Amino acid sequence: MEAPFTGMVNDVKGRLKCYKKDWLDTCGTGARILAPTAYIFFASTLPVIAFGEQLSRETDGRLSPAETLVSTAICGVIHAILGGQPLLILGVAEPTIIMYTYLYDFAKSTVGTELYLAWAGWVCVWTALMLFLLAIFNACTIITRFTRVAGELFGMLISVLFIQEAIKGVVSEFQIPKGENASEEKYEFSWLYTNGLLSVIFSFGVLLTSLKSRTARSWRYGSGFFRSFIADYGVPLMIVAWTALSYGVPGKVPSGVPRRLFGSLPWEAGSLYHWTVVKDMGKISAGYIFAAIIPALMIAGLYFFDHSVAAQLAQQKEFNLKNPSAYHWDIFLLGFMTLICGLLGIPPSNGVLPQSPMHTRSLAVLKRQVLIRKKMVKHAKEGMKQQASHSEIYGRMHAVFVEMENAPSHMLDKELANLKEAVLKHDEEEGVKFDPEKCIDLHLPVRVNEQRVSNFLQSVLVGLAVCAMPVIKMIPTSVLWGYFAYMAIDSLPGNQFWERMMLLLVPPRRRFKVIQEFHASFVESVPFKYIFIFTMFQLGYLMMCFGITWIPIAGILFPLPFFLLIYIREHLLPKMFPAHCLQELDAAEYEEIVGHPMRARSLTQRDRESADDDDEEDDAEILDEMTTHRGEVKRRSTSSFNDKQFQVPPGEPSGI
Amino acid sequence: MEAPFTGMVNDVKGRLKCYKKDWLDTCGTGARILAPTAYIFFASTLPVIAFGEQLSRETDGRLSPAETLVSTAICGVIHAILGGQPLLILGVAEPTIIMYTYLYDFAKSTVGTELYLAWAGWVCVWTALMLFLLAIFNACTIITRFTRVAGELFGMLISVLFIQEAIKGVVSEFQIPKGENASEEKYEFSWLYTNGLLSVIFSFGVLLTSLKSRTARSWRYGSGFFRSFIADYGVPLMIVAWTALSYGVPGKVPSGVPRRLFGSLPWEAGSLYHWTVVKDMGKISAGYIFAAIIPALMIAGLYFFDHSVAAQLAQQKEFNLKNPSAYHWDIFLLGFMTLICGLLGIPPSNGVLPQSPMHTRSLAVLKRQVLIRKKMVKHAKEGMKQQASHSEIYGRMHAVFVEMENAPSHMLDKELANLKEAVLKHDEEEGVKFDPEKCIDLHLPVRVNEQRVSNFLQSVLVGLAVCAMPVIKMIPTSVLWGYFAYMAIDSLPGNQFWERMMLLLVPPRRRFKVIQEFHASFVESVPFKYIFIFTMFQLGYLMMCFGITWIPIAGILFPLPFFLLIYIREHLLPKMFPAHCLQELDAAEYEEIVGHPMRARSLTQRDRESADDDDEEDDAEILDEMTTHRGEVKRRSTSSFNDKQFQVPPGEPSGI
Repeated sequence: MEAPFTGMVNDVKGRLKCYKKDWLDTCGTGARILAPTAYIFFASTLPVIAFGEQLSRETDGRLSPAETLVSTAICGVIHAILGGQPLLILGVAEPTIIMYTYLYDFAKSTVGTELYLAWAGWVCVWTALMLFLLAIFNACTIITRFTRVAGELFGMLISVLFIQEAIKGVVSEFQIPKGENASEEKYEFSWLYTNGLLSVIFSFGVLLTSLKSRTARSWRYGSGFFRSFIADYGVPLMIVAWTALSYGVPGKVPSGVPRRLFGSLPWEAGSLYHWTVVKDMGKISAGYIFAAIIPALMIAGLYFFDHSVAAQLAQQKEFNLKNPSAYHWDIFLLGFMTLICGLLGIPPSNGVLPQSPMHTRSLAVLKRQVLIRKKMVKHAKEGMKQQASHSEIYGRMHAVFVEMENAPSHMLDKELANLKEAVLKHDEEEGVKFDPEKCIDLHLPVRVNEQRVSNFLQSVLVGLAVCAMPVIKMIPTSVLWGYFAYMAIDSLPGNQFWERMMLLLVPPRRRFKVIQEFHASFVESVPFKYIFIFTMFQLGYLMMCFGITWIPIAGILFPLPFFLLIYIREHLLPKMFPAHCLQELDAAEYEEIVGHPMRARSLTQRDRESADDDDEEDDAEILDEMTTHRGEVKRRSTSSFNDKQFQVPPGEPSGI
Repeated sequence: MEAPFTGMVNDVKGRLKCYKKDWLDTCGTGARILAPTAYIFFASTLPVIAFGEQLSRETDGRLSPAETLVSTAICGVIHAILGGQPLLILGVAEPTIIMYTYLYDFAKSTVGTELYLAWAGWVCVWTALMLFLLAIFNACTIITRFTRVAGELFGMLISVLFIQEAIKGVVSEFQIPKGENASEEKYEFSWLYTNGLLSVIFSFGVLLTSLKSRTARSWRYGSGFFRSFIADYGVPLMIVAWTALSYGVPGKVPSGVPRRLFGSLPWEAGSLYHWTVVKDMGKISAGYIFAAIIPALMIAGLYFFDHSVAAQLAQQKEFNLKNPSAYHWDIFLLGFMTLICGLLGIPPSNGVLPQSPMHTRSLAVLKRQVLIRKKMVKHAKEGMKQQASHSEIYGRMHAVFVEMENAPSHMLDKELANLKEAVLKHDEEEGVKFDPEKCIDLHLPVRVNEQRVSNFLQSVLVGLAVCAMPVIKMIPTSVLWGYFAYMAIDSLPGNQFWERMMLLLVPPRRRFKVIQEFHASFVESVPFKYIFIFTMFQLGYLMMCFGITWIPIAGILFPLPFFLLIYIREHLLPKMFPAHCLQELDAAEYEEIVGHPMRARSLTQRDRESADDDDEEDDAEILDEMTTHRGEVKRRSTSSFNDKQFQVPPGEPSGI
């Protein structure tokens, strides 16, 4: 156990060294930072609006998209300026919405809805306190104990809740909203039914077109710029397109059909109340102030977990970040931001999961790599012609890299470690043919443009979006239900739990199809029996967690099973599964298994074409193949099966 | 020029020899013939119902699904008993519907709608006469001059007309049908709009789910039986499912929303009129009787073309049919059936295109092949061990085949010709490794169960479907619009014209992606310039043909450009394109280019698995890969590109 404050002090020291560079480096690149900024702005704003609408329905309009946007903007700006890891994106996330819904249900039956935000403020105060303690006592070292099993389960639970939200939403479109005047024309049966049918069309339309546009980069048709644009901005574009389409409803249809977003404007009286929430906090009785500790415990646990994992995924090893991490400091800062949000009566933000790694990925660059790569291959081949040894060949390649990167040799050694190993390995295995191109494709690193500007700018844009509330309110609610379903489905690929469930559905005779393609390594290395048991265990656990969210007040304890899971993973699972299986199915670190990234294939393809004009789109396509939609680096292995296809099957006479 | 009747006499002689066998052979197989029967029954009934509904709208209800079903049943039974090629499926097709629509428009302004069917009867009389003449004077020898360009264009025109029908249909759901009482409750604006929205949901639902179910056989999930069932019966199942769903509309919605099929029942007065159409034919004045020659010329041309091409595709070389063809006799019989239909006042049937090759494919068997294959490989390998020459090895394989097929050797020589060539080739090319498995996979023939029972039974079922009209009338019209769109889209893959249009949309830098996959051979062998010019020419021609269908009365001449195309192809195109390009893009026979069928890949995969239990589903999957959705054998080539991937690129040093 290290001394208190050690982690934080180290974090701050580490980040201060590159703080100036974080801001100034981007000035050189100029306008090129705008693309990732816009990309991540849309990717983080849409869910925040959707969650705001969800919250607005659950809290009878006490909180709305305006509040979630304001929280995201304030916390984003603070984190961009003071945060340890500027690649981390903050936003109001689904767990916060669920918690705030439980808080509202509790407040209704105790302190009253009038004092809801004041009491939630107390919850935030306690949460902040706990986060401070976690940061001070270096709790982030526990992060190595977070295994994938908990993260995957949590991700799946969120997906299930999104789907539930989408279904509830579409069903509600066929009903008169509570508290509305049922005698209005738009609530006549025929118009209510029309509203429901329109919502079915809009939500499925948004879902299907968004899912389609997501894969645009690999479409066969259309120019590279067009495909790239659709892939990056297709989802917001679809929201806009379906919103525009919703205005194509004939004039004879009464206004209010289809239903559109509801939410107070930030300059209306209801919103101005937020500035006086602090005063109301004194009105809460001591008993309820202490009762706030229980939800605060849950929220602190969730935030600690979520924030750290988001930070971890934004800094995956494969991204080759240069600057140090700052887990402890970021948790401390999160406590501070939670406090501010609590006092302002808005829901707090934390590190959000798909967006953070997506942010890092959008800043990753391969372009320069192509040049370096070509030169390295050239030198390696010259070496091979001269029958140089493999260490000599590596020396040549290293020299080229150092020269072109224009950086001190010792800093680059770490990056080239994989390549070095791969090249030198050939000295031992005589039989294997050495192919410099293949080696480099597999082991040459990605470069990420680490800076604070993109995060800062996107947060400012979110702030400006608050002023655009009148425009945002034009979105039909059914478009959001489609968007919820899209978020749920889009998050599934890359989740090993989901992939394993799908694998169980593949009949035994067709499993070879899975193995023939790029696949997760567990498919081959873990006996099917263990895959089955492990997946069934996870599924049962998921159903239990989902069940808990349905319990009226005690549902607030829904994060408990996830904390419990860390214990189960550490003490029970090792007794049930052989160590190597468990390591494949659920390793203790995110960097557990080094699969072959899929790059090899595509880089080689690309080079067949002249690698001249619009390399950027190609870069993005390669990065798409390397990572899941959520920006996580895929760990895939090509099967040995594929290689065998071109050999004589074992035990067969070897021909002529 | 052969003497009149020669072709017909030869056809009849040839078919008489196997006539008894056509009926008796199936008795042995028993119930196994029911699967293809049911499959082809659904595949041919649904379009006939859809066309009937289209006709019913265009002729103000004079003709309806009942009439098209009756015609299909009568002609089907006659053809199954007397027809030359029993694999050919008959039905009322889209060209007939278009022609009958023009006839109605013409009748409205001349003989009056009362005498419409009588006048159409005269058209049929003339058509029958022309078909008789064509058959007697051996015109079917012209069939070798029909090139793909005309067939493809015609197929695309039908697709475009289907899409037009689907769009017109959905739009019409938002409008009050002509001749209806606009003051009914279901025609109030709000219910009219509801009806329109429901039709959007149903038509898109049918379209998307049908397209999805079509590919079920290659799904990764679900048991083989389930996937096979969905692939074969998914489309009718979806029609039933969406029809059932349409009854989920709440009770408060007035009846008539959503709209359902319209059409008289066969036992109602309107339908009984058909028996007296012959009497009315005398009421037509001589002038109009002779005017009927012009549409008759068009219909005779269309039928001659359609019927022959359908027969041709049902007898593709790759299916290895044993029994002889009977083009002349079938045209004669078609004339006879047209005459009967005309006198009954129902639209005539002719050979239909997707269904005929689909029928043959559904009767194709690979199962026994697996056993034969294994034994042949075994013998070949033994030969290889003993260092036998390739002709000796072929001799062993041939002996096994003759033994297991239990048929005289000379009859099988033709089937094995490809295999023989492939094996012996290895004597010349010393370097190439001989792989018996690969050779056999590529060249061992498919076997089709040739008989008359499946065709006969499915026609009888179509006849029984007429009695089920009250059930058929439960289908919402919007489900049919979705089905029209499905038919259009489903017919596109495999149409080289469509594939070329898509290829033009692929940006040059991505064309390598096309070449990497299984692709039509023209992609590599024809310069892009010629592909472009040829495709643009076809596109222009298509637009012209589509334009002609819009001309009020003269639209009836829309088949003319297709007849003209045969002339253009023979005299103009050879001057514009080099011979080898033209041969790739549009060869004179359907068997023009021998591509590698895709079988090799999948058979090998299958054998990795134990080839024991449910081989039948696998067979179907392999056949799916070999043929397009329309049952046409794909002519694909694997690129030499793929092989090169595993060699050192030319001009590179060959490594260590």
